[in-house]
Amino acid sequence: MDLAQVLHMNGGVGEESYANNSLLQRKTISLTKLLRDEAITNLCCKTLPNSLAIADLGCSYGPNTLLVISETIKNVEKLYQEMKYKSPEYKVFLNDLPGNDFNNIFRSLDTFKENLHNEIETEMGPCYFFGAPGSFYGRIFPDKSLHFVHSSYSLQFLSKVPEGLDNNKGNIYMSSTSPSNVLKAYYDQYKTDFSYFLKCRAQELVEGGCLFVTLIGRQSEDPSSKECSSVWDLMSMALNDMVLQGIINEEKLKDFNIPIYYPSLSEVKLEILTEGSFVINQLESSQIILNELDNYEDAFEFTSKIPGSLKNDGYSVAQCIRAVAEPLLVSHFGEDVTKEVFNRFQKNVTDHMPKDRTKVTNITIALTRMP
Amino acid sequence: MDLAQVLHMNGGVGEESYANNSLLQRKTISLTKLLRDEAITNLCCKTLPNSLAIADLGCSYGPNTLLVISETIKNVEKLYQEMKYKSPEYKVFLNDLPGNDFNNIFRSLDTFKENLHNEIETEMGPCYFFGAPGSFYGRIFPDKSLHFVHSSYSLQFLSKVPEGLDNNKGNIYMSSTSPSNVLKAYYDQYKTDFSYFLKCRAQELVEGGCLFVTLIGRQSEDPSSKECSSVWDLMSMALNDMVLQGIINEEKLKDFNIPIYYPSLSEVKLEILTEGSFVINQLESSQIILNELDNYEDAFEFTSKIPGSLKNDGYSVAQCIRAVAEPLLVSHFGEDVTKEVFNRFQKNVTDHMPKDRTKVTNITIALTRMP
Repeated sequence: MDLAQVLHMNGGVGEESYANNSLLQRKTISLTKLLRDEAITNLCCKTLPNSLAIADLGCSYGPNTLLVISETIKNVEKLYQEMKYKSPEYKVFLNDLPGNDFNNIFRSLDTFKENLHNEIETEMGPCYFFGAPGSFYGRIFPDKSLHFVHSSYSLQFLSKVPEGLDNNKGNIYMSSTSPSNVLKAYYDQYKTDFSYFLKCRAQELVEGGCLFVTLIGRQSEDPSSKECSSVWDLMSMALNDMVLQGIINEEKLKDFNIPIYYPSLSEVKLEILTEGSFVINQLESSQIILNELDNYEDAFEFTSKIPGSLKNDGYSVAQCIRAVAEPLLVSHFGEDVTKEVFNRFQKNVTDHMPKDRTKVTNITIALTRMP
Repeated sequence: MDLAQVLHMNGGVGEESYANNSLLQRKTISLTKLLRDEAITNLCCKTLPNSLAIADLGCSYGPNTLLVISETIKNVEKLYQEMKYKSPEYKVFLNDLPGNDFNNIFRSLDTFKENLHNEIETEMGPCYFFGAPGSFYGRIFPDKSLHFVHSSYSLQFLSKVPEGLDNNKGNIYMSSTSPSNVLKAYYDQYKTDFSYFLKCRAQELVEGGCLFVTLIGRQSEDPSSKECSSVWDLMSMALNDMVLQGIINEEKLKDFNIPIYYPSLSEVKLEILTEGSFVINQLESSQIILNELDNYEDAFEFTSKIPGSLKNDGYSVAQCIRAVAEPLLVSHFGEDVTKEVFNRFQKNVTDHMPKDRTKVTNITIALTRMP
């Protein structure tokens, strides 16, 4: 089940539905938030830093970009107050690829800081914000310079399209018809990327520092299972139709594959253990069933990665998947073809999607940097 | 003499004229570069940091934004090599107001880093880049976190329009017809701002750290002298004509004043000594005479603060002053009126400007943070 599906089937998670949730529901639902709060509490109680460096990797941009930062700071402030410690200084590093709209984030910072100060009420330490452009599949920060690294729904993106997908004919992702070498190429790329991600973060975190990651994973041990591939199969269908009609060159389509991997829990665990720099505090897989309201808060955090402007358009699949796939499609096929791909894809989704179940597999990882 | 004048009278300082300068000229001209090199050499020889944190305050954006950073790193690399020390790690913080186009800078970083590595040739330490949005008339960085702070042609901007300019009728800046309280209001705002700037940097710099500033100043001890006011008088003239023709409301113009101050060398010195955190290593005033080519390199650094797109348009005064004044004019008078202001201003410049001399007073400040 994919991002686009999630948003589509959920029919638009807005402030209205948020307000309609009962307190009990809201208390029980957000597993991710609970685990994150626990992680930051553990970190602070053990290390009590008077200067806390937080990084959000793959922060994206939009009205909810700073949500996790805000919650984290409020959590720390509460903790320090309870322990009767002086509020720490905060260094917040916002990371994404250089193509992200950092201007958008930077221009919202003054209002964000003002609101945060108003909400916290007690006197808090100074808060310094920095943009840190670059791929998280590489070093972004100096050695041992961070205490808490957070990454939300970004790590399913691979650093690049795996090599050796030439015979993945007619598909743009792992599908039931993909040959085994395609599945292996995707898995190898995932292992290389995730392992290097862990290695870089291990160097950047202080001893005892915390790495907290949420990502979209899968339940099945089969990486080509329908839970992962169905949305991309519908886009494949659109692209193949366009080949048949002579709009897209067959060779051109052959070269196009989506650089995403939804790992299983055991695949994640294996890489963490193999890399060897972290203690696993939490490693949870949960299913968000999106037509049940009580999973709402996780979905909210999830949807916060989608640019704000999309939220007013009813979360149509075509629009949401655009946030993920459009740059890839445009650079490969050009703007005009991409527009037509999305028209056809949207129709395919409308015709075929509601038959599927509306679940997404959520993997939550809380790790501590070993001494 | 103002930015716009400088660029206009210089008739377009481009790569062509750069190439035409003789080696001797190029060696003797760039006082600023020489003083900056000296400052960074002093800093490194005395403190030998293995992690060097550099900040550029008011970095702007455009093809030359990273020029000083590049020169500084190359200088440090050469020094460390000569001393047979291992190349340090670099942390580069690029600061400007949140409205600056940081996206533009961030998207150029990969190419910048690649070019830097190619130019340096020997193995250099890792280089981490961060955007640091915010006003430099306030804290931007944690205590004692920087080694070298650079600011180029940004500090003549005040943090806000001084208060109490109600009777500066018909003027938008200090003019020969401005009452004395206007001159005092501008000077007080300058003192408040520059003194607070120094105080913040003193907190952010490590002991022995260096603050290197260039700014546009003035020769005369009279802040309303023609060397500073003439370009703004020409804009005043345009605005007043529009009042007479009923295009701009007189009251609206009365509220409009330009938040810039060009200090004299003695005013700068007084504030540094009064603030008291810094040792003055260099405090120089020089005049760039722009129709003499041998001042070219200073002018080049100077013009590098203008967005790149302007450089292809012949440096007309109207276009260059736009980089400074347009946001102020638009927010006060709206877009349509601003467009007309610049049309008339450009005509005034063409009619009146060439009679003036083509000098700009350049103030260079190199300070060391006291222990």
